[in-house]
Amino acid sequence: MSRLNAHEVWVLLLGLGILIGFARTLGEVARRFNLPSVAGEILAGILLGPTVLGSLAPHWLTVLFPGQGPNAIVLHGFTTVAVALFLLVAGVEVDLSTIWKQGRTAITVGLVGMLVPFCMGFALAWWLPQWAGHAPGTPVVIHALFIATVLSVSALPVIAKILMEMNLYRTDLGMVIIAGAVLGDLAGWILFAVILGMMGATATHTLPVAAIILLTLSFAAGMLTLGRMLIHRMLVWVQAHTTWPGGVLAFALTLGLLGAALTEWIGVHAIFGSFLVGVAIGDSPQLKEQTRMVLDQFVSFFFAPLFFASIGLYFNFKSSFDLSLILTLLTVTVTGKVVGCSLGAWLSNMSRRESLAVSAGMITQGSMGIILGLLALRMGVIDERLFIALVVVSVVTAMISGPFMQRILKREKSVRLVDVLTAKNFVHRMKAVNREEAIAELSQAVARTSGLSAGPIEQAVLQREEIMSTGLGKGVAIPHARLEKLSGYLVGLGISVEGIDFDAPDGKPARIILMILGPLGKESVQLDLIADAARLFRNDEIRAKALRSAGYTEFRALIKPER
Amino acid sequence: MSRLNAHEVWVLLLGLGILIGFARTLGEVARRFNLPSVAGEILAGILLGPTVLGSLAPHWLTVLFPGQGPNAIVLHGFTTVAVALFLLVAGVEVDLSTIWKQGRTAITVGLVGMLVPFCMGFALAWWLPQWAGHAPGTPVVIHALFIATVLSVSALPVIAKILMEMNLYRTDLGMVIIAGAVLGDLAGWILFAVILGMMGATATHTLPVAAIILLTLSFAAGMLTLGRMLIHRMLVWVQAHTTWPGGVLAFALTLGLLGAALTEWIGVHAIFGSFLVGVAIGDSPQLKEQTRMVLDQFVSFFFAPLFFASIGLYFNFKSSFDLSLILTLLTVTVTGKVVGCSLGAWLSNMSRRESLAVSAGMITQGSMGIILGLLALRMGVIDERLFIALVVVSVVTAMISGPFMQRILKREKSVRLVDVLTAKNFVHRMKAVNREEAIAELSQAVARTSGLSAGPIEQAVLQREEIMSTGLGKGVAIPHARLEKLSGYLVGLGISVEGIDFDAPDGKPARIILMILGPLGKESVQLDLIADAARLFRNDEIRAKALRSAGYTEFRALIKPER
Repeated sequence: MSRLNAHEVWVLLLGLGILIGFARTLGEVARRFNLPSVAGEILAGILLGPTVLGSLAPHWLTVLFPGQGPNAIVLHGFTTVAVALFLLVAGVEVDLSTIWKQGRTAITVGLVGMLVPFCMGFALAWWLPQWAGHAPGTPVVIHALFIATVLSVSALPVIAKILMEMNLYRTDLGMVIIAGAVLGDLAGWILFAVILGMMGATATHTLPVAAIILLTLSFAAGMLTLGRMLIHRMLVWVQAHTTWPGGVLAFALTLGLLGAALTEWIGVHAIFGSFLVGVAIGDSPQLKEQTRMVLDQFVSFFFAPLFFASIGLYFNFKSSFDLSLILTLLTVTVTGKVVGCSLGAWLSNMSRRESLAVSAGMITQGSMGIILGLLALRMGVIDERLFIALVVVSVVTAMISGPFMQRILKREKSVRLVDVLTAKNFVHRMKAVNREEAIAELSQAVARTSGLSAGPIEQAVLQREEIMSTGLGKGVAIPHARLEKLSGYLVGLGISVEGIDFDAPDGKPARIILMILGPLGKESVQLDLIADAARLFRNDEIRAKALRSAGYTEFRALIKPER
Repeated sequence: MSRLNAHEVWVLLLGLGILIGFARTLGEVARRFNLPSVAGEILAGILLGPTVLGSLAPHWLTVLFPGQGPNAIVLHGFTTVAVALFLLVAGVEVDLSTIWKQGRTAITVGLVGMLVPFCMGFALAWWLPQWAGHAPGTPVVIHALFIATVLSVSALPVIAKILMEMNLYRTDLGMVIIAGAVLGDLAGWILFAVILGMMGATATHTLPVAAIILLTLSFAAGMLTLGRMLIHRMLVWVQAHTTWPGGVLAFALTLGLLGAALTEWIGVHAIFGSFLVGVAIGDSPQLKEQTRMVLDQFVSFFFAPLFFASIGLYFNFKSSFDLSLILTLLTVTVTGKVVGCSLGAWLSNMSRRESLAVSAGMITQGSMGIILGLLALRMGVIDERLFIALVVVSVVTAMISGPFMQRILKREKSVRLVDVLTAKNFVHRMKAVNREEAIAELSQAVARTSGLSAGPIEQAVLQREEIMSTGLGKGVAIPHARLEKLSGYLVGLGISVEGIDFDAPDGKPARIILMILGPLGKESVQLDLIADAARLFRNDEIRAKALRSAGYTEFRALIKPER
């Protein structure tokens, strides 16, 4: 039996541990700067791979991530399973019913939005094949089709995340964007599968091209109709008769792996199968939120970072970096998407502003662009220079989409308490014994972080307090005021174990006191914060834990949103 | 770069899919028969491996699970990571604080309960080395120490599951069993690490034996003190500053892999490190229930089945089966545990019945026995015959522990609605329009499944109903009665969309009607069922979904416990 020896086991565990730990750390750092976490995860791989570690300490690179031998093979096995499971989860997030609900609008936006960048990409690659990273030996038409496809897909998971962060996910506008992306993606993936079929290069046994395309299309059609129905029936049964949620989880993973195996056997790469299985499963009204969550969390935080970081291990990003190619691709994809989606949205009678917002939402290529690029590279359709360019374009489009949409809609991300609380404006144990002292104490805390002087703050808040008391009841008070000089908002939060009378309707003294200062105009931020605080501290358990918390970090952990 | 080719990728995905799907299916079947699911998972591997598939269709075995080449190596990589993560989760379930809470009792029970089977196992292997599966070339004393250790450990996860199913987990008796098992296990594992150190066979570079033992003990001691404290601090920080629960999840997985790598490097196998990291993490009051759940579910339903099923792939269970060895080991471990634990419990002034119950709880070797056996086999300490015997003994002890404890305590598993509801006693759309008709309709449903005639049932229930109405309010009614002739209990459940007046305190008509019939003596079962139904249907959402459910399977899925 071929097995890893003790040294190889050690290297495997150490390598995986470092890869995941480092990828997740940089992923979190990226989120801090409002970048998609996939950007940080790829960067981690670049730092650990030949680009940086390999040029600084080549010996360590060959020890940790050997390019040859059993360890390299096992790592490739892990990343293969990882990307299949990542696509399974991406598929689960696709909700086919949004397409029916949004009807014509979604179809127009999705297809026109895809068609324009597709044509632009095709034209570019057709007329300038060498320059657009065409690898010699591949028919130019296949290369052009690929470029066209990769520039026109969008990354559904990234788009969904951006919309959620902007509180737009459940709005009509959000649904049009999602439905358009789903439709465009399905079309793009099927097209890509056909291109792979035309190459016929991944097949384990080479089927004739026509057979590959026919099998692929029938698999896709079957999965979205009969397979979907069958899976929904089975899911009800599995849910009723096995351990929950583990039974459903194992069912989904098994189907995903088998679907991946089937398409790999057909010759169109594993990810296509697991993606379609995911679509069929995720669409079921029977799939409970908790099952979805376990699947999503584990795959997103174990397998996905592993896959994205591993990309950096395989390539040298410095030697294959081509700035002019990157800029061209970026221009083509952004222009194509904006023109296409705006056109589609305009054809559906949306306002100019909404049309622009839709196109801003759909320029994200994100993880999908990277995965398609990697496949094409492996099959020799594109060269390494183009692949690196696609990775960069994918990350950049994912980065600009959110801010772009924000600017068009002038809508800010909803602000939560956890976003504005810092160690400096948090008073862990208040010294104040009455309302006036409490306001003074918090005014000082706010002054510390803002550079304003405490006096005017205190005065404004007291003035407001005289009009009507701000004790909410249940031991929470939210004194607040608006100041002319402010450009943003400021907060201070104090905990008083003894409690301070804030004249609450239930007569209870306030133990958690949140002071909010805002500028004269911006109403919504203040309301966001009050709503968030009310929601949080309405919960008896959170309130009790808040009073017991040992300091800032523990308090912060407590008020973090559960998802 | 060494990589899998397309054929190997296909085989990998198909093999993993079949392995997990089949292992989980048989795992669920095992649970149906009240057996631990690990028994089913191992059986799946035996069926897919050389024992059965290999003798029926050897060609398929070599295609699906080749013994040589890249695929075998990748599978070994997966199972290595799988067992490390399984031990991480097992460690997380260990709650060190129970030991302090149970104090002297736990220490006495744990250590005496371990010492007796240890001595018996040592004596057996020392005097009859050949017969007890001693592999030539290993010092007899190491072999004897190993047999002693493996016969004296117990499988904490299995024990915890059994206690939970019997509603004993949070009782004093349950806590003594758990604390004793934790202590015994820690001692057993450290001992085992020392034995591995004495062998010095897994080290990547051979450290002197003394160094291995010293490093191991310092790692264990450090992890349980300073490491534990540090990890708790870091956990608070990670929880406060990263995505939740994914950030914490990735943190735990990273530490687990790094801990595993460290102990593998020292030379005492990866699982020791990830287990101790798990203990240090799981002990933190900061680790939220949801993070624990995601980790547990994914590992238990993806990695664990993979590992346990793979055991069956590597060995031929038929050719190495030795019944007399199995019976001897079984006798020694059961006698040793019963004598040892009873003695320990008796020394701590527990009653005779409780002492016996404690020993019944601790005879479970389960997964731990299997993992230790596999390690010892790989290192050449034992032969394949003994390994197979250990697998069988581990499964058998896990199977008898629950029923044994039940018999001693005469306590039945708490019965839930989902356990007694079948398609036959469920009436999806009741025809009845009043109380009398409803009782008649459900009596017929009950009669269908029991062989009793509907008349007497109807009469008894109506009689009970005359004394006091059984409408609970919120649209739920629970008519019931006791019948002399019954030996068990019977139920019928009907849904009436229009609602039937059951004279409820809130005046609302009953839409969910549960009829319970019990024998004259057994009070508790009836109360269990009423409590379960009340708990379930108090929830507005469940009630609303119950009325909308399309039939039996969907209703069953709805009332399944969430965990």
